[in-house]
Amino acid sequence: MPAEGGSEVTGGRPGTDGPRTLGIVGAGQLARMMVEAASALGIRTAVLAAGGDDAAAPVAGEVLVGEATDGRSLRSLAALSDVVTFDHEQVDLRLLDDLEREGVQLRPAVETLRVAVDKGEMRERLAAAGLPVPRYEVLGVAGDRGRGPDELAAAIAAFAAQGRWPVVAKAARGGYDGKGVWVLDGEEDARALCEDAVRAGTPLLVETHVDIDLELAVVIARGRDGTSVSWPPVETAQVDGVCREVRYPGRLHPDLADRATDLGREVAAVVGLTGVLAVELFASSGRLLVNEIAARPHNSAHWTIEGAATSQFENHVRAVLGLPLGDTSPVAAHVASVNVFGSTSAGGGDPSAGMSQALAVRGAHVHLYGKQPRPGRKLGHVTVCGDDPADVRARAWAAARALGTPVPFPIEAVVP
Amino acid sequence: MPAEGGSEVTGGRPGTDGPRTLGIVGAGQLARMMVEAASALGIRTAVLAAGGDDAAAPVAGEVLVGEATDGRSLRSLAALSDVVTFDHEQVDLRLLDDLEREGVQLRPAVETLRVAVDKGEMRERLAAAGLPVPRYEVLGVAGDRGRGPDELAAAIAAFAAQGRWPVVAKAARGGYDGKGVWVLDGEEDARALCEDAVRAGTPLLVETHVDIDLELAVVIARGRDGTSVSWPPVETAQVDGVCREVRYPGRLHPDLADRATDLGREVAAVVGLTGVLAVELFASSGRLLVNEIAARPHNSAHWTIEGAATSQFENHVRAVLGLPLGDTSPVAAHVASVNVFGSTSAGGGDPSAGMSQALAVRGAHVHLYGKQPRPGRKLGHVTVCGDDPADVRARAWAAARALGTPVPFPIEAVVP
Repeated sequence: MPAEGGSEVTGGRPGTDGPRTLGIVGAGQLARMMVEAASALGIRTAVLAAGGDDAAAPVAGEVLVGEATDGRSLRSLAALSDVVTFDHEQVDLRLLDDLEREGVQLRPAVETLRVAVDKGEMRERLAAAGLPVPRYEVLGVAGDRGRGPDELAAAIAAFAAQGRWPVVAKAARGGYDGKGVWVLDGEEDARALCEDAVRAGTPLLVETHVDIDLELAVVIARGRDGTSVSWPPVETAQVDGVCREVRYPGRLHPDLADRATDLGREVAAVVGLTGVLAVELFASSGRLLVNEIAARPHNSAHWTIEGAATSQFENHVRAVLGLPLGDTSPVAAHVASVNVFGSTSAGGGDPSAGMSQALAVRGAHVHLYGKQPRPGRKLGHVTVCGDDPADVRARAWAAARALGTPVPFPIEAVVP
Repeated sequence: MPAEGGSEVTGGRPGTDGPRTLGIVGAGQLARMMVEAASALGIRTAVLAAGGDDAAAPVAGEVLVGEATDGRSLRSLAALSDVVTFDHEQVDLRLLDDLEREGVQLRPAVETLRVAVDKGEMRERLAAAGLPVPRYEVLGVAGDRGRGPDELAAAIAAFAAQGRWPVVAKAARGGYDGKGVWVLDGEEDARALCEDAVRAGTPLLVETHVDIDLELAVVIARGRDGTSVSWPPVETAQVDGVCREVRYPGRLHPDLADRATDLGREVAAVVGLTGVLAVELFASSGRLLVNEIAARPHNSAHWTIEGAATSQFENHVRAVLGLPLGDTSPVAAHVASVNVFGSTSAGGGDPSAGMSQALAVRGAHVHLYGKQPRPGRKLGHVTVCGDDPADVRARAWAAARALGTPVPFPIEAVVP
């Protein structure tokens, strides 16, 4: 038996690590892709889903159904989990504060979530740290500072008067994918919005409307010990505030990319991040401005699943569990990732109806999230890696189109 | 709203495809990795597990607990599934024949399984097709052809007399990872084995003991329409019949690799394959001989998860569901994949105890299967991609060792 003989060497550090369960608040596609990454590492998962139909429900080890803002549900999730992380920002910070005090390991911590879930708080914290953000003013909700719709609209007009119309108003909380962002062309727009906002109790902030040369994003993973790694920044293409396409490296000049990376790491440190954080940036007349941040895996780095040595999902799982972070190097010279949306044609377009056609596209990596199709709903994405930027774009769009994705510009622009 | 305006183009072939559920008989690590691949594609899964602790149980969409040879369990699985595939070979062919006649979509089909699950049948079919196999004789079980232990042993001796001792006896069914294979040095060995085999009702075959220059494997994916793709052949390192390490391209001369690929495709066609098939080969004095085949994803291609554009698991899922096959090109010049086994030290070595150390190894892709640790049990694997063959081996072994894997030779041989 030469196999396990005298020259055998064994390793490991028994007792220092061990099997783990990762709890995830929310069970959307980000949770699903976290679960896929955790599964490969032998890590169990539990999700708190809004319903059994949620994207991550079929793959998670345990599925609890309940609201992300319900203390009982959160405590049940925590009881199953070594660490609790998040799929989305629709959380109750006060409740999470209580959980943290009770000893629940939240990653990112409430300190970070406080900044990430409220755009007003985010602006204040980044500005205080000297990081570049558009000029802004936090308006608060009606009643705050004694303001009704008229006073809020007047504040917006005064803000515009220091620069120019249009200005951008944002809901401080609850917005996503372009929802909760309004471009206001004058006082009339402002008044109409403020009436709606006061009625709905929506806290607002107002910002300058930046002349954007291009939009980019950088994603950072930061460990519990403060060490961080980042994937190279990408150019993002938004239509109506919704990300449609991500390109590595896109049209980003290496200097701009380096500055974006530095900025991303500063943001991660300022918010005390553990996990993955995305920083969406505007490039405007040679300057970089922070647009949005998200303290979780983000659409702008789905390309890393096939396009980088370690994906954002794997590094998020590693970071929140206190494991070393993996290599973030790209594995191809060019990567394009195109989002798949429910078609606006009859039936909302089940993307799996186009699977054969999409998978016949050379090198197309198709991800579908298993969500109920609805027109305009984000249902998946397609990534293509290669040497030629036009070719990878063309193939990614061809596969996304086969899956029913409406193409927001003449297809000839990308498919030669 | 420029977004979804007049220039919008929609695609897809509504009605030709659609959402699917893949049923898997067995819920070991192969099923787990199939589920991970299916999840990315938005495909639901159901597994027939021997127990709730099985590797694939925490990630599969539906988990049925029952025996793979139980008709009721199989029919319950089939009722949930569009297509049924397999994690292992411990099946009842007569029962599967019935299911196929009832209209259950088995992929691979019974025609293929019949060859893959019985080494005697495999030898007969490949030899009949003119494919190179070691000289062999199917001995059958006691009672077959009226043979008791003495007659079987005499048949083995007569077989040896046409060549030389030692010869290799194999259990025709139920063997795996070196179990069910015996090297017999003479008539005494043969008699002892035959007595055991008759007692246990084990059907035997006998083969020449091949002088092996090296062992290699080729993995083929073949679609329902007969089109096939293959990953480049790899060198495998076995200790006591157990695969410990897989190297792409290893020491394989390109000509030998090409011949192995051709042979693999012929085997796939001969057995009428749909899905993934592994062919394990001996290179002996410039000749290639088929050693074993497996009509499912196989340990010798776990490296394709990170090392190739499309993994064996994704292409297996695609093939059995009738979807187009993906690009099998390697993404690195060299890849090493090392299996993780339960350590022989106290406690059987929970590999997750060494996760921090293993993940700290640069570029180490760690896969743990979530199985109960036991000394010598296969619990995971580690893959490393890179430019330098010695470096990728060293890193893969370092990470596997950190996870508690016994190293079957002086570690200096791989870790400089």
